[in-house]
Amino acid sequence: MTEEYGNIKVIGFDADDTLWVNETYFREAEETFGRLLSDYETPNKIDQELFKTEIDNLPIYGYGVKAFTLSMVQSALELSNYNVSNKTIEAILGIGKGMLEKPVELLDGVEEVLSVLSKKYRLILATKGDLLDQERKLEKSGLTSYFHHIEVLSDKKETNYSKLLNHLDIKPSEFLMIGNSLKSDVLPLVNIGAHAVHIPFHTTWAHEQVTEKETNGKTYKTVSSLREVINLLD
Amino acid sequence: MTEEYGNIKVIGFDADDTLWVNETYFREAEETFGRLLSDYETPNKIDQELFKTEIDNLPIYGYGVKAFTLSMVQSALELSNYNVSNKTIEAILGIGKGMLEKPVELLDGVEEVLSVLSKKYRLILATKGDLLDQERKLEKSGLTSYFHHIEVLSDKKETNYSKLLNHLDIKPSEFLMIGNSLKSDVLPLVNIGAHAVHIPFHTTWAHEQVTEKETNGKTYKTVSSLREVINLLD
Repeated sequence: MTEEYGNIKVIGFDADDTLWVNETYFREAEETFGRLLSDYETPNKIDQELFKTEIDNLPIYGYGVKAFTLSMVQSALELSNYNVSNKTIEAILGIGKGMLEKPVELLDGVEEVLSVLSKKYRLILATKGDLLDQERKLEKSGLTSYFHHIEVLSDKKETNYSKLLNHLDIKPSEFLMIGNSLKSDVLPLVNIGAHAVHIPFHTTWAHEQVTEKETNGKTYKTVSSLREVINLLD
Repeated sequence: MTEEYGNIKVIGFDADDTLWVNETYFREAEETFGRLLSDYETPNKIDQELFKTEIDNLPIYGYGVKAFTLSMVQSALELSNYNVSNKTIEAILGIGKGMLEKPVELLDGVEEVLSVLSKKYRLILATKGDLLDQERKLEKSGLTSYFHHIEVLSDKKETNYSKLLNHLDIKPSEFLMIGNSLKSDVLPLVNIGAHAVHIPFHTTWAHEQVTEKETNGKTYKTVSSLREVINLLD
């Protein structure tokens, strides 16, 4: 094992797009939403307005499918200048419910890696989605037994992670976070002295994107597949 | 201190209607919703249909204001036979946002009791609302420093509490739950061998109501005010 990882006691896994496919479903939902509103605006304008509404609503709605659905309803009213039909609103509610009932598609190597790591470390799922939705996905995934518990964070900033470490009663150097988002799963950990491994996913929500300036000089490892984490820790 | 409470290490507090007013805001929201839909149905029918929609949606939406808002939108479409105006839909979204921005009104004696108990026990907030909303309320309440952390439960059934105790690494006999709902904060705890104190609130959501048969033969204490908990544990 690399020296730097010698103290690790707990490993936190991001869930969406780290263990299973998620962002792909949001992209599909946005496309369906665009088609539903195509009488009123161009696809580009619809995308932009929905994103703006989501960001405006983040402070009160937070993350997850319910927040996304409420933002779609609001955007539909505004984009149509209050002319959208009740049936379209119903279809938008249906997009959200469909997302909450999607099958869980595991990413490559997940079960194998969790099986190995769970023998040596306490594993937790650390997510900012809705708890109920993440519990549903965890159950469908068949991975429940590998995790000590699920930690829901209202956001994934430094203060949220500091509170989490306090709650877990461990030092930053004893925690490793693994995830697909530099902004949420990597940089805040590095900034508080914890470890982080970045596993990029092919699709990243605009809100999660970071600039080179933000990553400049930060120490974290990037691997192309979860399987490689085993070698890092071995 | 009563002998039976001698082993307690962690005290879980329900948040809504135990520490601060909540159900009152839901009743107000339902009344506003009823007025918005009054062209289409009687207040009684509107109440019944909204409740039915909420219960139907519980398995996928869970609890909290966002779930409630989505159920109001769905009910409005259905109750109006798809004739409700876009402005009414917007007003319904506004009801939800208003709830998420309500001031926090503490119930009698809360701060005093938490101050006393936090010196001797680890206190946690155990809620099935949205994490972000509960964090917001906790921050507004000024009570943050008394709690070790917030536990969000997707439901408050026996299995959820068993998982919680496992996560806290304590035995059932070491845990006391305090809350206003017999169904959610008291009976499941008693059934798994933990302690529970019931503090009724004047308003209870229909979904939380229990029958005498369910409470028959169960051992828990009921107090009329949080202040009395101090005497119980003293």
